[in-house]
Amino acid sequence: MATTRKGKKKSKKTTVNSKKTSRKTRNVKKSSGKTKKVTGKTGKAAGNTKVAGKTKKSTTGVSKKSGKKKPVKPSSHFKLIRKVADMKKLARELRSRRRKIALVPTMGFLHEGHLSLIREARRRASVVVVSVFVNPKQFGVNEDLDRYPRDLAGDRRKIRSEGADYMFAPDVAEMYPENFQTFVEVTGVTRDFCGASRPSHFRGVTTVVTKLFQIVQPDMAFFGEKDFQQLVTIRQMVRDLNQDINVIGMPTIREEDGLAMSSRNTYLSTSQRHQATAIYRGLRKAKRLCDSGEYDAAELSAVVLDLLREQRDMEIEYVAVSDPNTLERIHEVEKQAVLMVAVRVGDTRLIDNIRLTVRRRR
Amino acid sequence: MATTRKGKKKSKKTTVNSKKTSRKTRNVKKSSGKTKKVTGKTGKAAGNTKVAGKTKKSTTGVSKKSGKKKPVKPSSHFKLIRKVADMKKLARELRSRRRKIALVPTMGFLHEGHLSLIREARRRASVVVVSVFVNPKQFGVNEDLDRYPRDLAGDRRKIRSEGADYMFAPDVAEMYPENFQTFVEVTGVTRDFCGASRPSHFRGVTTVVTKLFQIVQPDMAFFGEKDFQQLVTIRQMVRDLNQDINVIGMPTIREEDGLAMSSRNTYLSTSQRHQATAIYRGLRKAKRLCDSGEYDAAELSAVVLDLLREQRDMEIEYVAVSDPNTLERIHEVEKQAVLMVAVRVGDTRLIDNIRLTVRRRR
Repeated sequence: MATTRKGKKKSKKTTVNSKKTSRKTRNVKKSSGKTKKVTGKTGKAAGNTKVAGKTKKSTTGVSKKSGKKKPVKPSSHFKLIRKVADMKKLARELRSRRRKIALVPTMGFLHEGHLSLIREARRRASVVVVSVFVNPKQFGVNEDLDRYPRDLAGDRRKIRSEGADYMFAPDVAEMYPENFQTFVEVTGVTRDFCGASRPSHFRGVTTVVTKLFQIVQPDMAFFGEKDFQQLVTIRQMVRDLNQDINVIGMPTIREEDGLAMSSRNTYLSTSQRHQATAIYRGLRKAKRLCDSGEYDAAELSAVVLDLLREQRDMEIEYVAVSDPNTLERIHEVEKQAVLMVAVRVGDTRLIDNIRLTVRRRR
Repeated sequence: MATTRKGKKKSKKTTVNSKKTSRKTRNVKKSSGKTKKVTGKTGKAAGNTKVAGKTKKSTTGVSKKSGKKKPVKPSSHFKLIRKVADMKKLARELRSRRRKIALVPTMGFLHEGHLSLIREARRRASVVVVSVFVNPKQFGVNEDLDRYPRDLAGDRRKIRSEGADYMFAPDVAEMYPENFQTFVEVTGVTRDFCGASRPSHFRGVTTVVTKLFQIVQPDMAFFGEKDFQQLVTIRQMVRDLNQDINVIGMPTIREEDGLAMSSRNTYLSTSQRHQATAIYRGLRKAKRLCDSGEYDAAELSAVVLDLLREQRDMEIEYVAVSDPNTLERIHEVEKQAVLMVAVRVGDTRLIDNIRLTVRRRR
């Protein structure tokens, strides 16, 4: 589970629409002995923080608020790698020395969500590679490739200070040389939801992730649960193509008011940023309803829809309850489900989700 | 380059339409020091025998007709593997012991063409894995999946006696478990030719080959040049997806009358089998014409077409001169080209090709 770096950065109030948002987090020791990370001062945002990965061990030496944490030591041999051939060579060397390689694939402009992946990667592997590549193949023709935020110098600093070993930041011509023409496509789980409105998006994601897997040769790879359909798609791809990689999903990291962290949040105006909080408010409301015994998918969706419809600039793309493995829409929550939302606030597309669980009746 | 096993089998006349065809081959030492394999007693079939792969070294200890060859020693630890998990485990072990793994992917019903790949693999790697899998995803709905010839016991015997170490023969449910939904697709080079008449064929090939690459973890993989578009497609895929595998193309092995060996030759009636010889006769005629200074693609194709049209049961699918790397059709041979043919003889689809080279003018 991710350790936090309380006290390393000064806690400051999150300013709306700011580029760099520092987080104040705390670890709450649950009776089970597992720590659970909650975001925000109030701890209200704890609804969706279950770790979906296989982090079964408790965190090392971290206790409640007074917990001492191992200080993060920036890697002494940190290196920025720009060439595919260099990264491949390095990966071969590391593999031959039997090092456990973790890959954290990102599109850069890193926020606390990414950093939580890097921390977990560092905890679980002997070598951590963070890739930074704004992948043109996963943007549609009318999408925001050109305005997608970039900050390579800042990313480098953050990656290094989180103790990662390598930053792999190839340019587009390195990844897609002239005459590039091969794609990896997952069909079933990509059809609905984001796949419906962004037709070639997941094909771009699975293609670049397969390339990164081949180049970096990781034993494990880390993805955020915020992009839930992406995570399911990558798990499906890894299974179908027999890729020998442990895919680890990590919980969504949120702003203090609950908005899921995303590089795209920077696009929002002050008013839009405020309206965007309705997404997670709706998700939590639905979760509470589920916890109180309402399992009907339409009813659960309705509470989200009601809140979203109150927002002036919000266009709803989908609100749906699905099986968390197949993403098939379900009518009733039977054991596990995921409630997923996609909206547009002005020109900005935002997604979020929350896990729903039927509590055992005694 | 492939070594041959002259004298191991008794040479017998190739019977038309026979299942098992033994070959008589000989190695001709060229002045360059490279050996070149020619098929057939007359040596007429030597036109298309250039090795396209990177076999730069000369064969070990094999000299002309009197050449002594190392006897092929069947592997003492030969093993048939049926499960993906077992193959993956084995591959991991082999890789950790830094063994060089060669993969020869086949659909079984092995003939001398396949065996020549196994021999070359054995020569170049420390571990040879031959996969036998009739891949349903590369057959169209109206194609010959059901009647495709199978002989697992015979394949096992041949693979073992060629000195391969492992035969990997998973069943369909192992390779495509329920809910399988991921595909690897090469777009450009698959569009024309066989890709035009067999729309999802290459997608099936590249998907299964990627899976095999992930399962077997080979350093190198061997493919026959007979399936020229397939070879170009796989090279393109390996390049585009950064797969760390040396793809080695090996020359087409032919029956004594020049017909390219293919498992599908078994479908041919005696009369069809005779007509099929027109394909390679046409290709050689075109090559001679090219060698004599005719570089116009239409003229070169015409000599093939003329011969094919004389055959009663032959339906021509394509005859084309292309760039051997991009497969783009060309009007004139400038340096290197490939002349490719696809026909149907009755219900049987046959393909073949020959390389064309512009000789340096002095």
